[in-house]
Amino acid sequence: MENEPLLMIPGPVPIPQRVRAAMTRQAINHRGPEFGAAYADTVRVLKTLFGTESDLYIISGSGSAGMEAAVANFGRDKRIVSLVNGKFGERFAKIGARYGTVTALESEWGTPLDLAALEQELEAGAEIVTMVHNETSAGIKNPAPEVGKLARKYDALFVMDGITSIGGDEVLMDKWGVDVAVVGSQKCLAAPAGLAAIAIGERAWDRICDKRPFYLDLAAYKKSGSSTPMETPYTPAVPLFLALHEACKMIEEEGIAARIARHRRMAESVRAAAKAWGVELFPKIDEHHAYSNTATAMRIPDGVTDKDLRGTVKKFGIEIAGGQDHLKGKIFRIGTMGSVGAQEILATLAAVQFALRKSGFAAGDGLEAAAEVLLG
Amino acid sequence: MENEPLLMIPGPVPIPQRVRAAMTRQAINHRGPEFGAAYADTVRVLKTLFGTESDLYIISGSGSAGMEAAVANFGRDKRIVSLVNGKFGERFAKIGARYGTVTALESEWGTPLDLAALEQELEAGAEIVTMVHNETSAGIKNPAPEVGKLARKYDALFVMDGITSIGGDEVLMDKWGVDVAVVGSQKCLAAPAGLAAIAIGERAWDRICDKRPFYLDLAAYKKSGSSTPMETPYTPAVPLFLALHEACKMIEEEGIAARIARHRRMAESVRAAAKAWGVELFPKIDEHHAYSNTATAMRIPDGVTDKDLRGTVKKFGIEIAGGQDHLKGKIFRIGTMGSVGAQEILATLAAVQFALRKSGFAAGDGLEAAAEVLLG
Repeated sequence: MENEPLLMIPGPVPIPQRVRAAMTRQAINHRGPEFGAAYADTVRVLKTLFGTESDLYIISGSGSAGMEAAVANFGRDKRIVSLVNGKFGERFAKIGARYGTVTALESEWGTPLDLAALEQELEAGAEIVTMVHNETSAGIKNPAPEVGKLARKYDALFVMDGITSIGGDEVLMDKWGVDVAVVGSQKCLAAPAGLAAIAIGERAWDRICDKRPFYLDLAAYKKSGSSTPMETPYTPAVPLFLALHEACKMIEEEGIAARIARHRRMAESVRAAAKAWGVELFPKIDEHHAYSNTATAMRIPDGVTDKDLRGTVKKFGIEIAGGQDHLKGKIFRIGTMGSVGAQEILATLAAVQFALRKSGFAAGDGLEAAAEVLLG
Repeated sequence: MENEPLLMIPGPVPIPQRVRAAMTRQAINHRGPEFGAAYADTVRVLKTLFGTESDLYIISGSGSAGMEAAVANFGRDKRIVSLVNGKFGERFAKIGARYGTVTALESEWGTPLDLAALEQELEAGAEIVTMVHNETSAGIKNPAPEVGKLARKYDALFVMDGITSIGGDEVLMDKWGVDVAVVGSQKCLAAPAGLAAIAIGERAWDRICDKRPFYLDLAAYKKSGSSTPMETPYTPAVPLFLALHEACKMIEEEGIAARIARHRRMAESVRAAAKAWGVELFPKIDEHHAYSNTATAMRIPDGVTDKDLRGTVKKFGIEIAGGQDHLKGKIFRIGTMGSVGAQEILATLAAVQFALRKSGFAAGDGLEAAAEVLLG
């Protein structure tokens, strides 16, 4: 323990010591072979997490920069249909509106997307679909394979925000028909915040816009990424690249299947606790949608305040997330991403259970239920 | 010594241990008071280096992202005049062309800018002037105060790339009439690559474009930057912010005047060595232009190859820079930025002198000349 707050929010997440240590080395030339090899090896691992054989590049910027790169390079002056059932879906629609004509298909946060309406928009000529795979603002996982199929059927591009799923949950970009996908470094990859990785399939390259931004010009990333040693078009955030490379080594050591299974087990244990407590899960899922395997959103029970709940948990040095925007004070969220495990989850759930009971909510024993799940 | 190559290129530069160590701490919440305080204190110090009392924000991205933010927020669909006498001036013109109508006033790299032509363009209605203050590709310092005066005279905005001057050479943004200025973290500030800081004066805010990009939307930075605790609109590269904060503490400890004097002395010592060697300085300066105080560009003497020169220097674990684009093989460049001092400069100059003589060039004793300057 380092006497630092334990971040059990939906990212940024705790960063393993090995990964942080990778940032302490002296500056290296970002146009040299050592940097190029680290970049290339990171790309190799990330492709396996994206489930793609397509090109993949790393942008020095947040996940939102990656989302904008996807829209700005392929969506300018295009008809974009944005699927929205949470904060990041809304963000994707907002970004789209800066470049093209957006039809936002909005569902209540945490409720299923309207796939029938999507098909209508595609029939009517929409050229790009944007979707957030794992919507942490509401704790719901959206149906990427179904949307991919529809996009292909109507010859549209499918741009997917995989920021909080890739590296923690199963993503099969090529199989699902995703044309462009994005991940952020500070979520399931357990690296520091500040990098976004973006994968671009052939269908997308064929339709890249003539007019593109500069810093987020994916053609520039492709050109620099094809050189030997591999490079970025502009000076990269070198320490973050070295950290992400180390994080990828740890992911390979764990094994992707094991990592995904661990994430699922962690989220399931939180859901088991919620059930035992008598706390309602926030999302309304159906046969196409699922609970998120990386962030669990729960309703704050009547009689309990957000401040009491999260404030009490924080007294134990643990930060969990509240609701965003109109869900402030209504839900709380626990992130189970990256390298955390049973220790962190048990501590977090114990603190939440204590806080619930302290607020007068007669919570059942969520810890035993969670512990059973964690033991598998 | 850490057995790492010594980077004596015009950035990235060696990063002090204290600054690198600041990145090793566990992830903190970027919406919390601790991060906000670090961000605010960094901004406070940077404003003194920019010579401004205007708003200043930090973008998670390279210096080029900062340049694009300046152009994209203020130059869309505008008449832009870009002063060009090196690679980064060219880049500024290229970025401008993605947003507005650019007239590039090109001089040979490393030769004076055409201020008379600038005045003509301003008279003819140019609305924005872009200029690189310190053009490391050619080792020349461009006349910011003169350009600022002209821009004000004709009511145009003056956007200045101070990426390689701010923090190492004198910059007086407000006094000179600079409306928007940008610095990069990995140059004179001696922090890791990956952040750009941008200052925006009132005249610029008054003319911000309605249509702006998303990630680089400066209005969003202003809004988040005005909250308490101070925030960024999107997830920041937290370790880089902490490192830059530590770098700013070191700058304050040294004192800005002392830091600028040190940078000037370092560049002067390299120029003294060049003179003693009989190696020609690359830039052609006049009464408005000066040699760069952070990067010295020199012609490679006849009979010496770039490969032999830099290759031999590299054998001592020291990296100096070659020429870029059409200057490849024709010049070499030594960066003297950030926290380096006499040790690093003497080692570098000794290696260069050895390499020159090894290649058969009868170099005089540059070391003695440089040492005299370094002692002051």
